Amino acid sequence: MSRFPQLTPFTGDDGIVRIIGHRGARGVMPENTIEGFDFTLSIGVTALEFDVVATADRVPVVTHNLHLANSATRDAQGKWLTGPELRVADLTLAELKTLDVGGLDGRTVYGQRFPDQAFMSGVRIPALSELLDLCSKPGSEAYLLFELKSDPDLQDEAVARASLVANSVAEVRKFGLEHHTVLHSFDWKLLDECRRQAPEMPTSYLSQLPENDDDPGEDSAKSVGPDYKNMTVSVPRAVADAGGQLWCPYFMDVTPELVAEAHALGLPVCTWTVNETADIDRMIDAGVDGIVTDYPGRVQRHLLNRGLRWE
Amino acid sequence: MSRFPQLTPFTGDDGIVRIIGHRGARGVMPENTIEGFDFTLSIGVTALEFDVVATADRVPVVTHNLHLANSATRDAQGKWLTGPELRVADLTLAELKTLDVGGLDGRTVYGQRFPDQAFMSGVRIPALSELLDLCSKPGSEAYLLFELKSDPDLQDEAVARASLVANSVAEVRKFGLEHHTVLHSFDWKLLDECRRQAPEMPTSYLSQLPENDDDPGEDSAKSVGPDYKNMTVSVPRAVADAGGQLWCPYFMDVTPELVAEAHALGLPVCTWTVNETADIDRMIDAGVDGIVTDYPGRVQRHLLNRGLRWE
Repeated sequence: MSRFPQLTPFTGDDGIVRIIGHRGARGVMPENTIEGFDFTLSIGVTALEFDVVATADRVPVVTHNLHLANSATRDAQGKWLTGPELRVADLTLAELKTLDVGGLDGRTVYGQRFPDQAFMSGVRIPALSELLDLCSKPGSEAYLLFELKSDPDLQDEAVARASLVANSVAEVRKFGLEHHTVLHSFDWKLLDECRRQAPEMPTSYLSQLPENDDDPGEDSAKSVGPDYKNMTVSVPRAVADAGGQLWCPYFMDVTPELVAEAHALGLPVCTWTVNETADIDRMIDAGVDGIVTDYPGRVQRHLLNRGLRWE
Repeated sequence: MSRFPQLTPFTGDDGIVRIIGHRGARGVMPENTIEGFDFTLSIGVTALEFDVVATADRVPVVTHNLHLANSATRDAQGKWLTGPELRVADLTLAELKTLDVGGLDGRTVYGQRFPDQAFMSGVRIPALSELLDLCSKPGSEAYLLFELKSDPDLQDEAVARASLVANSVAEVRKFGLEHHTVLHSFDWKLLDECRRQAPEMPTSYLSQLPENDDDPGEDSAKSVGPDYKNMTVSVPRAVADAGGQLWCPYFMDVTPELVAEAHALGLPVCTWTVNETADIDRMIDAGVDGIVTDYPGRVQRHLLNRGLRWE
């Protein structure tokens, strides 16, 4: 047994493959919104993946990129943002709260990736505290795969990095969710800082090999990650050596051999972002512990069709 | 302007095609459940289609068929129902409330039609009063396309028919939703009874021509409908002659000419159940007022892509 109870919802078992809602349930609901997290919890998927970035006034907020995607952001008049994308770190929480993130612009490549996503209006970027409030309500069984985004421009600014971790950890503790939270990042050095500041929360290591491209509309994760090209051991071995407790590889990088190696090292494996049934099958067959998906209902049904369950 | 304000959410306008959530949002959430209706309302789709059947103790409940589909119903131990399908009219509300309708059996043809539908447990068939309670909460803007199911076995039992209408209308009035409700049926004679008992609620005429098959897993609507084969006028003309205020044809039966004829007769046209984008396009092009769909998010996005909106 792990010494971290919050790893259980990310660890498979006999007949069990875990489901983690990606940014809530991006295929169905606007990503990284209270409305989307609420939906995901309502269908019995209690593990939520989400992303945290700091505002100009150092408030941790839940949004995926360091810049706001024009394809998913409208102004107070309901017009799509245009021009250079706004940097979250340049805006205050009050300024961010004037924007509407309730829908995708179907004219964009990113918008076309999620044609069934509901289109809502008046939906705001949540402060981290709003999500933690939702997840700490009586009766809530939420578990958090809490991604800290680090800014490549601030890679060497130890103060900014330590402050993002400190503010995030303080919020989690304030809501009493430290035993429901796993800290998760592409930036392995940031995870060292997480372990230093919050030894009660396990760390989850995201990886994506350079040969597998990013999806359209995503910030590149590569500039903040380790140097995979010059890595002399396998990725799961490197995660274990770094002190990680969970490995989260991009699904194109997953093989049964790597999953077996991770398990031998004591690392559960949760893979992202798995949406198509053929890929879901391949991940189940590879032996992963959990599947991070934009379509949690689809993965529920697919697991049941194979005689599996998620809890 | 119609004398019925509740027809507005079912009537198109310049740049507006209405969206009606079919049994809530059957493609995403278990059909005809409070959880599904709540989801549909949460994404800004305020027109809800649902079905009402009476229990043995004459309580109107929200469920589609006169029999409970084994493919969507588990017993108190979580086992799928098997054998001859249970008749709602043979069970009391208390007996129905022991059953779980939170998911579909993926081994069945019906289950396979909705592979993304969330799988939940402990979800109950709602009494009509529970849905009306949800829809009459302060701030709710719900509009109801309230389908009364009539039992072909009881076609000539005037008492049973009048009682279903009376109990349904009494509930709607009790919750003050009569100006938010349209009464809807395949059984055109039952709609006469509705108008008699509830002149403040408009009547909506469902139609499906005999040459277009039912979808798998649905009760046949044909035995309770009019005799289309021997109809000497067009269906919209027959609806207008019968005193209807809304025409709801099966989407395979819709043509631009019939829609134009309905409009000339003062009848808005809402068509069902339209889920594929090619069909959504064809219905928009035919000029329908509203689209009844299992995938309301998809229709929202498709309308926006065409420069249209739903409200």
